[in-house]
Amino acid sequence: MADTTVLPTHLEACWAALRSDAPLVQCLTNVVAAPFTANALLAAGASPAMVDNPQESAAFAEVAGGVLVNLGTPQETTAAAMREAVRGAGRAGTPWVLDPIGAGGLPWRTGVAHELLGMRPPAVVRGNASEVIGLAGGSGGRGADSTAEPDDAAPAAARLAAEHGCVVAVSGEVDLITDGDRVLRLPHGHPWMTRVTGVGCALGALMAGCAAVERDPLVAAACATAALTLAAESAAGRAAGPGSFAAALLDELSLLEPGALAARVTLR
Amino acid sequence: MADTTVLPTHLEACWAALRSDAPLVQCLTNVVAAPFTANALLAAGASPAMVDNPQESAAFAEVAGGVLVNLGTPQETTAAAMREAVRGAGRAGTPWVLDPIGAGGLPWRTGVAHELLGMRPPAVVRGNASEVIGLAGGSGGRGADSTAEPDDAAPAAARLAAEHGCVVAVSGEVDLITDGDRVLRLPHGHPWMTRVTGVGCALGALMAGCAAVERDPLVAAACATAALTLAAESAAGRAAGPGSFAAALLDELSLLEPGALAARVTLR
Amino acid sequence: MADTTVLPTHLEACWAALRSDAPLVQCLTNVVAAPFTANALLAAGASPAMVDNPQESAAFAEVAGGVLVNLGTPQETTAAAMREAVRGAGRAGTPWVLDPIGAGGLPWRTGVAHELLGMRPPAVVRGNASEVIGLAGGSGGRGADSTAEPDDAAPAAARLAAEHGCVVAVSGEVDLITDGDRVLRLPHGHPWMTRVTGVGCALGALMAGCAAVERDPLVAAACATAALTLAAESAAGRAAGPGSFAAALLDELSLLEPGALAARVTLR
Repeated sequence: MADTTVLPTHLEACWAALRSDAPLVQCLTNVVAAPFTANALLAAGASPAMVDNPQESAAFAEVAGGVLVNLGTPQETTAAAMREAVRGAGRAGTPWVLDPIGAGGLPWRTGVAHELLGMRPPAVVRGNASEVIGLAGGSGGRGADSTAEPDDAAPAAARLAAEHGCVVAVSGEVDLITDGDRVLRLPHGHPWMTRVTGVGCALGALMAGCAAVERDPLVAAACATAALTLAAESAAGRAAGPGSFAAALLDELSLLEPGALAARVTLR
Repeated sequence: MADTTVLPTHLEACWAALRSDAPLVQCLTNVVAAPFTANALLAAGASPAMVDNPQESAAFAEVAGGVLVNLGTPQETTAAAMREAVRGAGRAGTPWVLDPIGAGGLPWRTGVAHELLGMRPPAVVRGNASEVIGLAGGSGGRGADSTAEPDDAAPAAARLAAEHGCVVAVSGEVDLITDGDRVLRLPHGHPWMTRVTGVGCALGALMAGCAAVERDPLVAAACATAALTLAAESAAGRAAGPGSFAAALLDELSLLEPGALAARVTLR
Repeated sequence: MADTTVLPTHLEACWAALRSDAPLVQCLTNVVAAPFTANALLAAGASPAMVDNPQESAAFAEVAGGVLVNLGTPQETTAAAMREAVRGAGRAGTPWVLDPIGAGGLPWRTGVAHELLGMRPPAVVRGNASEVIGLAGGSGGRGADSTAEPDDAAPAAARLAAEHGCVVAVSGEVDLITDGDRVLRLPHGHPWMTRVTGVGCALGALMAGCAAVERDPLVAAACATAALTLAAESAAGRAAGPGSFAAALLDELSLLEPGALAARVTLR
């Protein structure tokens, strides 16, 4: 059932805090999405740092405000760095976000995802419906693609959230976010978001940034989702296709004021 | 001599199939071109997946519609993943495309390219003139750059095509595509294509996407070439330089209708 | 004290040489900045080649015009390639540029930076104030971010320059460039430069390109700085935010004529 305790003003406060505090967000992410992810964090006002080697990632996770672990293009070395980062985050209480790209469909990285989940619960798991279903043990999707809709993944999301004590955010036409108890849906965005690589990955990074400045991970996940999807709606209005949309999305993310976010967002 | 059996309508059907089928294209490519490559595939309507680790690339190549292997920034680990991907592609009959960046000029990766060619013939080898000459055993170029023109590489391309039973596509001011028997030339494009990183690499990826939906690799290679170079002509008309051109190129790729492609393309 | 021996005409000649000679610039850089860096080099008229594996980087550095080593996302393998590249550059006398991202704050890469500095002096060390202070032994910054201003790093820059016999360029609101003897300041740029990932990294790459065509590394570093910061001023005038600014910056870099650079630059 829909939650009514999370209000637009909570999202407004979170977005304002992200912009004023400029939290340091450590990103261990894939090589395809890395540039757009860093640019989205910079546009939002956060400070990205792509520290993803095993030598430095634990210590860095101890000083970062938030950590993103994205399984888009894992290799042995970066998977080792992810373990270190989660270890460091655990020691320091740094919130971390798991983006289990391809979970379910690709066995090795699905194993890495479960290993990381078992080390310390993340603040948020973010994925599309197929990935969330796949991570929860159902049959997974084909890479970053998803043929299922977020509501199809609602039971899997609730199960994952309860099992790990975390928030699960399922991206799609209507985004669904739950902590196993409360459920939020946000109906914003634009189809071009699925025609630009790294947009979903950037959403996970924004959630890590929001979690750095907001104690309630449900609010953090909803704030990041609202910001990116509302910026996408604005960007689509002045773009001719996915190329100009990508640049406009970064512009709009930097232009989005906390008050406007709260005024425009629909939570249900 | 020029081939007259490949017609604009064949390219039109291939481009329409790419857009309707949204084939899954596995990309093992370089870190510089990866984002633009993924964006070009998404703009065209295909579904990119950058699975490039040795643990998962063979199994993924068995389910993908096409596989791109690009040697732009190989490392031991990703080279191992390329061998696995070609092995998987061989088992499943998945068409794959080899983009031998730097072949001839850089000995280690030239060896990797020959090793991959020996495992299973690709559907298409795509490169600039220096790379095709270098791969065929002549003196190679300096990275992704080429000082030679495609027609200079025609004998090398014919030799490679005959030896491996594949199509060889040579990029340049006039693109040349041959299967050793038939020869096609396409005179489209714009100089800014050489001022944006990853455009050539994206062409290889589009060829892998087209090969996923079209049995004749000569048609697949010509369709991808026509689409990208025609989109470039449109994009150049509304760009101020290479930065705005890159965004416009993705826009135009997504806007290019199959009928317009057939109406505008020159095959000779 | 300010140097008066470097004149706008020297920068003009350097920029003209970069555009006419199209030097081959080998980049061993981070995965986040790699695409923008390559695009900036291409826009400027240089020829980037991202050869960053241990097997090929030494031999390539011997034939390249300049080499960039950027420590943004080092891994064991790419760090080994960096050592090979500096070795090759040393054998051939190829000028190289060190961009010590995160130096001071991150111990492992700081050690790699010192190791490389000890092998052969670079033509230029480029960083923000925190990184230059951190590399010189002071307390470092938090990743690519800098809270200090270039003039705060002037003593550390002078010390590094004297110790290694190289130029040190400190990026910030007013850029500071010194060889330990001469000191130059350039007051150009725009705040959006800090809101696009890879802009600072691209500056290091442009310095490597300029050093390939100009014997005085102080002139090379100043030319690259002038070009990028003046292009940024032009780009900001027609951008709506960091996304459109990034594309416009590449456009303006390609449009910047040597005469305009000399006419617009302030050296003090």
